[in-house]
Amino acid sequence: MKRLINDPYDVVEEMLEGYVLAHKDYVTLITEGEAQGRVVLSKTAKKKDKVGVIIGGGSGHEPLFLGYVGKGFADAAVIGNINTSPSPDPCYATAKAVNTGKGCIYLYGNYAGDVMNFDMGAEKADEEDGIRVETVTVTDDVISSENIEDRRGIAGMFFVFKSASAKADMGADLDEVVAAAQKCNSVTRTMGVAMSSATLPSKGGPIFEMEDGDMEIGMGIHGEPGVRRGKIEPADRVVDQIMEPILADLPFAKGDEVYVLVNSLGATPILDLHICFRRVAQILEEKGITIYKSLVGSFASSMDMAGMSVTLVRLDDELKELLDYPCDAPYFTQV
Amino acid sequence: MKRLINDPYDVVEEMLEGYVLAHKDYVTLITEGEAQGRVVLSKTAKKKDKVGVIIGGGSGHEPLFLGYVGKGFADAAVIGNINTSPSPDPCYATAKAVNTGKGCIYLYGNYAGDVMNFDMGAEKADEEDGIRVETVTVTDDVISSENIEDRRGIAGMFFVFKSASAKADMGADLDEVVAAAQKCNSVTRTMGVAMSSATLPSKGGPIFEMEDGDMEIGMGIHGEPGVRRGKIEPADRVVDQIMEPILADLPFAKGDEVYVLVNSLGATPILDLHICFRRVAQILEEKGITIYKSLVGSFASSMDMAGMSVTLVRLDDELKELLDYPCDAPYFTQV
Repeated sequence: MKRLINDPYDVVEEMLEGYVLAHKDYVTLITEGEAQGRVVLSKTAKKKDKVGVIIGGGSGHEPLFLGYVGKGFADAAVIGNINTSPSPDPCYATAKAVNTGKGCIYLYGNYAGDVMNFDMGAEKADEEDGIRVETVTVTDDVISSENIEDRRGIAGMFFVFKSASAKADMGADLDEVVAAAQKCNSVTRTMGVAMSSATLPSKGGPIFEMEDGDMEIGMGIHGEPGVRRGKIEPADRVVDQIMEPILADLPFAKGDEVYVLVNSLGATPILDLHICFRRVAQILEEKGITIYKSLVGSFASSMDMAGMSVTLVRLDDELKELLDYPCDAPYFTQV
Repeated sequence: MKRLINDPYDVVEEMLEGYVLAHKDYVTLITEGEAQGRVVLSKTAKKKDKVGVIIGGGSGHEPLFLGYVGKGFADAAVIGNINTSPSPDPCYATAKAVNTGKGCIYLYGNYAGDVMNFDMGAEKADEEDGIRVETVTVTDDVISSENIEDRRGIAGMFFVFKSASAKADMGADLDEVVAAAQKCNSVTRTMGVAMSSATLPSKGGPIFEMEDGDMEIGMGIHGEPGVRRGKIEPADRVVDQIMEPILADLPFAKGDEVYVLVNSLGATPILDLHICFRRVAQILEEKGITIYKSLVGSFASSMDMAGMSVTLVRLDDELKELLDYPCDAPYFTQV
């Protein structure tokens, strides 16, 4: 394992300690009571009379989730252990910490553990404090199920978080923020490829076995099975196999305008991502689909996993306005 | 090799093609004549009567250099092959492309090939077009030589580029921009650790051999020898060994205020970087050195190399103003 950690069971606590020291102008950690030292809170939280935006999930996907807590972005992130949902109590504590009376929205990837624990947090916030909490789970991973509501959330979460956060910051009410998140989720599609497992600190090695030189098309960010395993192919051929299911799924069609994200799962260099982007752009041009804007980098990782994913978001004027809305968080600043 | 590329000899061209498509609002590629398709030009270049800021060097260190071309940052980057200096002609062409009459500055890491080729570019710009071009080479890698002017440039380049770019954007003349770059370079110190070699596309494997589980303290971003190779140790112990030479070198002293960068060389996760940052912050607190601001992420990589570096910049009011100056480039935006 080529990792820089201390005690493998302290990685999340030590990361959070480092995080709030490194980004002290942006965030603090709620260390007391139900927050269990697992809530990263924006310094701008409650500074405005707005819907509270709460994101979260397991650790090991940085800069997801905590990197997107900041001005004009999420108000707080609830942090779980590596690849593990946060507990219900910190979810609940976060609703109390960011609610200004306009209610809160929970946004996270659609994984069973997260759904269970965030739902318990929402219930407690309602019962004990009368805080209305709504939830939108992100379901952008096209190959994870034929049934859209059963799909997992991966890198497309970034866009759903961004849209809802912008809507909230503009002063919208909770129903409108929920609608913005749902709208963005409904037009966001992602698919990835992995060439190695992430290494798990507590295991001291890879989470799952993968032969050197192999790739798996469609693999999830926790190593969930994809559609096909084989030898690593040229980048263009890999992108072709990812773009086909994405384009067919919504479907994206001639005349559409899209936001593109080419995301590194961790160890895949920015150099390679741009070679992949080049092919994405060629395919979109062939199909008559216009690229509005693009992001290329690591926005949702699986620690040191080698691989990447492509996300497309089909835009309309409202989504453009929301995604262009200025924000300033440690891992995404936009003017 | 776990890489996503096509023909290994086309990686730089294909990356550049993808780059200018992905970041079309920020940059273009000069494809004609002496630029040889290797000059990434800011869309804001020559829009203001200012000193032209030109950065560059070999590829394979992304987001260095091209990621820092944009508004309030560098006007252009000259791009070499992987780990190879750009040729003199594109260096020359870039001076012509960004000069507004106030002259230009070349900024790059202190490597023999870069020095030779950029110097030839500067000479040609002077002789053929009467453009005054000054140069500041970055020498932040503390262990690369006892002699400061012989040291290599690594992640600290980011701060030198940022300072000089801000000074130029404020309207300073060429001598003042040179002075700002020299000042920042004189107070910037970096040291790193590597746990693997990057893989070289043309070789189809690692650039150099490194046993799995080993680390090398002080290794350069091209695999230049460090001070000691041994088994990977706990993060805190690794950071201790990096911080000691950095602190002793300037030296940094009680009462100093610093900007901190904890930089991933490619494959080291953001999670681990924050565990390292935590120890950096502890050490600085013990020494009575104040952290002004911090950056944690991949700012100067070696493709998929596992490892990280720590950079400290000793600040004064002028450097704070320059480093805080707003900018908007694909890989660094600041409001």
